[in-house]
Amino acid sequence: MKSSARNQFPGKVTSVIAGPVNAEVELTLGSGDRIVSIVTMGSVKELGLHEGSEATALIKAPWVILMTDDAGLKTSARNHLRGAVSRLVKGAINTEVTMQTSGGLTVNAIITNESVDSLGLDIGTSVSAIVKASHVILATKA
Amino acid sequence: MKSSARNQFPGKVTSVIAGPVNAEVELTLGSGDRIVSIVTMGSVKELGLHEGSEATALIKAPWVILMTDDAGLKTSARNHLRGAVSRLVKGAINTEVTMQTSGGLTVNAIITNESVDSLGLDIGTSVSAIVKASHVILATKA
Amino acid sequence: MKSSARNQFPGKVTSVIAGPVNAEVELTLGSGDRIVSIVTMGSVKELGLHEGSEATALIKAPWVILMTDDAGLKTSARNHLRGAVSRLVKGAINTEVTMQTSGGLTVNAIITNESVDSLGLDIGTSVSAIVKASHVILATKA
Repeated sequence: MKSSARNQFPGKVTSVIAGPVNAEVELTLGSGDRIVSIVTMGSVKELGLHEGSEATALIKAPWVILMTDDAGLKTSARNHLRGAVSRLVKGAINTEVTMQTSGGLTVNAIITNESVDSLGLDIGTSVSAIVKASHVILATKA
Repeated sequence: MKSSARNQFPGKVTSVIAGPVNAEVELTLGSGDRIVSIVTMGSVKELGLHEGSEATALIKAPWVILMTDDAGLKTSARNHLRGAVSRLVKGAINTEVTMQTSGGLTVNAIITNESVDSLGLDIGTSVSAIVKASHVILATKA
Repeated sequence: MKSSARNQFPGKVTSVIAGPVNAEVELTLGSGDRIVSIVTMGSVKELGLHEGSEATALIKAPWVILMTDDAGLKTSARNHLRGAVSRLVKGAINTEVTMQTSGGLTVNAIITNESVDSLGLDIGTSVSAIVKASHVILATKA
């Protein structure tokens, strides 16, 4: 697949919780990391999503929030990926931050330069990537 | 209307599927393209949305994913607009990509420079713009 | 809390409307401004959200749409914060716009330079910040 989403995480569906309109789909990646996505029941049927099926989670870099001390915090976002900063590319307003989870997953986030400074981000800094489940798009091969 | 959303698509409501909390509203644009939005039932009532009523879909450029070979792919995103790249404006980290659908609709996306390279985007490249229905805001004249 | 979300609004929960899967949670901030968020019922339980409890709304700057003449408009977005532009930081493609509400709340948005021009934004311009409830993440101390 070729898409502009900087985060494309292939995995296997490990849970589908069906609601009246929406479903919560959990994907387990090769790295062991898990991604939860909220999609419509229509998409579950159209994509043929079920336990054991393959799918790829698409998450654009500007949708990712980075957090440095989430130990003492809980958020309503279903996706918390813990890792360490491995790359910083600075622009005029934004910085692209790449982090790696312990399982080896690479996550890209675009945050403002001010946030890089206020979080004190540098290569090696421990961070969590936070993504709301309703922001995650799932893709499958037709 | 004056809003900073780079994509403002006026159209007519062609379908409202009501759920207990949310509704799926389909807008058909002058170009023939269709946009699906998930909004709360409260908004459906407050905006007076019904088949035949006018509304404008607001979609910020960073919410758009571009895909170059979606033929063999299905995604959970309800909005797939097919077209060709008509403009590229490059910044330090991001590029603003403009595409036109065959119906003449102009769609703006902001993606990273790395994605422009990995997708091989240039003027004339065929692309699909992918937008999740829950990301679309609807607006009406009061 | 240290997060890269440029908008972190602490407040008190003033309403929780429970649905079968999702809940609509209203936060009232110290400034008097109110923020509505859609989160899963699972998060309501896990974060212990109830009337009177404390929580912080996290909103990344690219999720905010700015509007200059919303008087004659209604949108499906549940959050409309009115204020005036207090700062503009221009990049190659995007500008970071800071606005202040009358209650003193500071809101950061990232919009394109073209939008800054087409809206005629300058220090002091009256604007509304529009945010969809499903884009808001809630956080609490564990």
